[in-house]
Amino acid sequence: MITPQLRGEPVMRTLSDQLYLDDLHVGQRFTSEAHTVDEAQIREFAVQFDPQPFHTDTQAAERTFFNGLAASGWHTAAITMRLNVESGPPIAGGIVGAGAELSWPTPTRPGDVLHVESEVLEITPSRSRPDRGTIVLVSRTINQRGDVVQILKARLIVPRRNRSAFSAATTSAARITPSAERVQ
Amino acid sequence: MITPQLRGEPVMRTLSDQLYLDDLHVGQRFTSEAHTVDEAQIREFAVQFDPQPFHTDTQAAERTFFNGLAASGWHTAAITMRLNVESGPPIAGGIVGAGAELSWPTPTRPGDVLHVESEVLEITPSRSRPDRGTIVLVSRTINQRGDVVQILKARLIVPRRNRSAFSAATTSAARITPSAERVQ
Repeated sequence: MITPQLRGEPVMRTLSDQLYLDDLHVGQRFTSEAHTVDEAQIREFAVQFDPQPFHTDTQAAERTFFNGLAASGWHTAAITMRLNVESGPPIAGGIVGAGAELSWPTPTRPGDVLHVESEVLEITPSRSRPDRGTIVLVSRTINQRGDVVQILKARLIVPRRNRSAFSAATTSAARITPSAERVQ
Repeated sequence: MITPQLRGEPVMRTLSDQLYLDDLHVGQRFTSEAHTVDEAQIREFAVQFDPQPFHTDTQAAERTFFNGLAASGWHTAAITMRLNVESGPPIAGGIVGAGAELSWPTPTRPGDVLHVESEVLEITPSRSRPDRGTIVLVSRTINQRGDVVQILKARLIVPRRNRSAFSAATTSAARITPSAERVQ
């Protein structure tokens, strides 16, 4: 099992932290905690989901496009999600994506210490569903040298405050991960 | 560890299968093998990378936006990658993405049997690097009911045949996953 080592204690969000569509503004920024990626994590993810030598085999990777072991882009995306869920924008109802654009300008390498810097780019209340809207959140995943390893523009579904069943039904559960489920 | 159950034996690609940029054409299609997603896989991925109740806790998930347990979109993306690496387009040098657009029209649910249907949308030789080019490949991940659970448009880097160091350096290693690394 891959256990992200977050700086300090995992963040336990409380209901009072939660941000509804009405609480967000364009330009609002969030910075996550950091996570150190090691070779074992890169290999373990790749063996499961992206079994190509440049992600699984340090020696073979030297002779590939990547010139050395690199994390799967989907691994970088998954680590980014973990960091955002635990220490990124505390969106009411959780982080629920409808779609995303991704690019990977630089590979993630063993030893990289990644954190995520996010910014709200757009806020769009739904015309047909008054209980919700969407935002576009850009999340840059950045290593210890300041290199951007991933740019993610995600379209997220966000409930409105006090508008209806959406928020009532989701927020009571969505940001509270039962302790038994948490990775320690 | 999550062990995808592919239909039949895992596909071992050989060098003669490999497709270079010169071998591809717009409209070319590829269909992967299938993978069955179960609740344990959904929970295991989510605990590591997307620890939100609608992905980790069947009971709590009933009271959320998803109305029941759903796989993380990043899990669907990772499964899609695995299926494409093992039984999708056999691109020389492997499947190397520079960027992607994703949407998740329908959640992936426990019991879903997913396969991937891909099509080449664009082919663009590099102007500055005669040894390579990019393609846009759309991959639709489809469940047993025919619902599309993910649409991925990926920009992939593809070597040209007999053009230079890129292909020589990468193809000897890239599609051959050492047997010790393979998930059995």
